[in-house]
Amino acid sequence: MQKQLDFFLFLGSTYTYLAVNRAEALATREGLSLRWRPFSVRSIMIEQNNRPFVGKPVKLAYMWRDLERRAQRHNIPFTSIPNYPNDADELAGRVATLAATEGWCPAFARAAYGAWFLEDKDPGRVEHLAAVLQSLAKDPDKIIALANSQEVRDRYAAETEVARSLGIFGSPSFVYQREVFWGDDRLEDAIDWCKAH
Amino acid sequence: MQKQLDFFLFLGSTYTYLAVNRAEALATREGLSLRWRPFSVRSIMIEQNNRPFVGKPVKLAYMWRDLERRAQRHNIPFTSIPNYPNDADELAGRVATLAATEGWCPAFARAAYGAWFLEDKDPGRVEHLAAVLQSLAKDPDKIIALANSQEVRDRYAAETEVARSLGIFGSPSFVYQREVFWGDDRLEDAIDWCKAH
Repeated sequence: MQKQLDFFLFLGSTYTYLAVNRAEALATREGLSLRWRPFSVRSIMIEQNNRPFVGKPVKLAYMWRDLERRAQRHNIPFTSIPNYPNDADELAGRVATLAATEGWCPAFARAAYGAWFLEDKDPGRVEHLAAVLQSLAKDPDKIIALANSQEVRDRYAAETEVARSLGIFGSPSFVYQREVFWGDDRLEDAIDWCKAH
Repeated sequence: MQKQLDFFLFLGSTYTYLAVNRAEALATREGLSLRWRPFSVRSIMIEQNNRPFVGKPVKLAYMWRDLERRAQRHNIPFTSIPNYPNDADELAGRVATLAATEGWCPAFARAAYGAWFLEDKDPGRVEHLAAVLQSLAKDPDKIIALANSQEVRDRYAAETEVARSLGIFGSPSFVYQREVFWGDDRLEDAIDWCKAH
């Protein structure tokens, strides 16, 4: 049976752009299945007073430069620094939760990040989100209503609680059993660990 | 002429343990020379209110687990979590500055980290520092007096100012021209960049 690596992701995270665009292909090539698990890392970071960039302009500037270089390294498009933070109400995050239950999270996450990073359109805004959903042949009104339902809100919160209980504090995080790997730059480590254990 | 990659290091940094034990060999294998430049990242981090672990036990616990795994990945010994932070007065840091001017910084940094990580002996304490220096056939009294001299203090401060002006905010950082790569996990990126530019 194929081993399964959990991929905890937050759609407002910058480096998660890289993971969304390369994790699935890499996992598949290595014979693993990837379980996409959207969650609210923002809630956890606020709880833990973990704000790596707020009031830290030098570190923030470095992050974008590093992210640009890493994108080049992995042949992922990067044009310019988009507005950040985004998705204030985590609506796009909850759509990802719905998409994960229905099997279209990888495509949605890539499209949402494409809007954000390549067109500077915040996928948390309804008009941009609607365009992303239409590009995937989804009905925006229906999907957005579901993303705002209590059921999806509860699911998003429950996944956040799972992440919290695992000691996750950042996105992306990759988990096999209870072993946590944080960061797109730990994807290879996570895959190696998963294969070896 | 051989290209030179700058290696800014702070002896109280945890991940710098990995870089100290692998950067020189990797740079040499890739045909680059490595210039070891000790500096006080602690001063810069305090200035920037950048305290990634203070009051963040979940992130701190992850850091040690990740560091342990990365050490295994690179065949660098890791036995248990040493006391942290260390070198409160940055005496070991200033010895590294002196060592860098005299050409024995790589050996000193490895020995100081060996004391800290493998024997849980803070190299900032004079008795442990003396043992480290003796293991390198250096005269502890003489070296420590020099490390406390105004000349070496000024040199340490000047290197810190160079780091600050480059936008460095963490250790280890690797720099080629003005391109900064932060983290032991960016060593390969830095080397590739240096070779390509």
